[in-house]
Amino acid sequence: MIPRVSFLLLSILLGILGILCVVFTVYWTQHWLGGFAWDGSSQMFNWHPVFMVTGMLVLTGAAVLVYRVPLSWSGPKLPWKLLHAGLTLAAFILIVLGLVAVFEYHNKQGIANMYSLHSWLGLGAVLLFSCQWAMGFASFLLPWAPTWFRALYKPIHVFFGSAIIPLVVAACISGINEKLFFKLTSTTTPYSQLPAEAWFANILGMLILVFGLLVLFALAMPVWKRPDVNSQDTQEPLLQEDK
Amino acid sequence: MIPRVSFLLLSILLGILGILCVVFTVYWTQHWLGGFAWDGSSQMFNWHPVFMVTGMLVLTGAAVLVYRVPLSWSGPKLPWKLLHAGLTLAAFILIVLGLVAVFEYHNKQGIANMYSLHSWLGLGAVLLFSCQWAMGFASFLLPWAPTWFRALYKPIHVFFGSAIIPLVVAACISGINEKLFFKLTSTTTPYSQLPAEAWFANILGMLILVFGLLVLFALAMPVWKRPDVNSQDTQEPLLQEDK
Repeated sequence: MIPRVSFLLLSILLGILGILCVVFTVYWTQHWLGGFAWDGSSQMFNWHPVFMVTGMLVLTGAAVLVYRVPLSWSGPKLPWKLLHAGLTLAAFILIVLGLVAVFEYHNKQGIANMYSLHSWLGLGAVLLFSCQWAMGFASFLLPWAPTWFRALYKPIHVFFGSAIIPLVVAACISGINEKLFFKLTSTTTPYSQLPAEAWFANILGMLILVFGLLVLFALAMPVWKRPDVNSQDTQEPLLQEDK
Repeated sequence: MIPRVSFLLLSILLGILGILCVVFTVYWTQHWLGGFAWDGSSQMFNWHPVFMVTGMLVLTGAAVLVYRVPLSWSGPKLPWKLLHAGLTLAAFILIVLGLVAVFEYHNKQGIANMYSLHSWLGLGAVLLFSCQWAMGFASFLLPWAPTWFRALYKPIHVFFGSAIIPLVVAACISGINEKLFFKLTSTTTPYSQLPAEAWFANILGMLILVFGLLVLFALAMPVWKRPDVNSQDTQEPLLQEDK
């Protein structure tokens, strides 16, 4: 009973934090960075942080915790697999849109792509995420992966799934930091004097950090792990569900 | 036997990566940022990345893995506790020096302190590290902490010990990113055109990321965890060792 209640409480906290991360990102981009458009302007860029924080951080954080929900421990695993795949697919769509937003903006404005450490890290996270989705789909939802392969690949999928979280946190933090240095250089109140925008976006960065650490904490707690973690569940592909 | 060999191989890889991180940081600061001094100039600042990468990342990474060394699983735990405390103490000394280097430089040059997200994150990591060291020393080395307290505090100490790693990785990445934007703005080849320095420091950032992820991987692998993880070891303070 205690694991269920404590997991529920943590989930509520993570839900609040996740919503706060998205709301803070939207408010920052809306209020200080000029709002949204889809026209290659800096307003198009503004979708980039919103989509990345929502998809890559919050939806991915929710997706990696699906199998920690105690309800998922009994009964068929398929609905939970579909929920995991659905959440990560939604995240993936947002990630692609987030990439389009920044590349289109750069290209229209004649700004170079993929030079900063933030961009290298972010692209690394996107590539890892894409491999995870494709491999997870082919191994655990499609019926033709042999059982030995599922058993072998599962811990790898689980490890890289959680490795995405610190990667994304580092990408978000470096991205916010770099945007503030870009934006608050030529203003009357530079970043170094901590105007309201800098406070706000720094707090957003800390919220993202706490969210990421709490997701890693929830993943690491043995008491919240699915008890039958290495048994039947690797052997249940989509098309064999009714066997 | 296999866990021992695989852990040895991972340790060698981590050793090489850790040395590479330090060597890359020293080479970057020596070759491109102007070398070292202790006089409040930008050469004093250069100690900051060197001390932080060495202490906060590499030594801390080694320290958190001490209890994963299979040799530590049998025999008295005290030498390993002292090794863990010694490595983290060495790290702490470097961290303090790394902070002095950046604050002195800022103060002498009239640059504001503690405004960027990188600095907030870094200070958060330093505060967490300090709490961990003080609490770990008082709980596991000094003799007066009661057994129930050790048992209660140990998983918290272990969790925050591993939480420091992603925090430090994010701090290092955002720090390198920000330094490159500072440095490569007014040069003939800006950051956006990826001069050799940018390539070099970006690769340093990726090395730091891989090092951090591998440390987290080594920590998470059940096969490398000390088998008696929740038994006698919480009950063995320094001064009761010979009982």
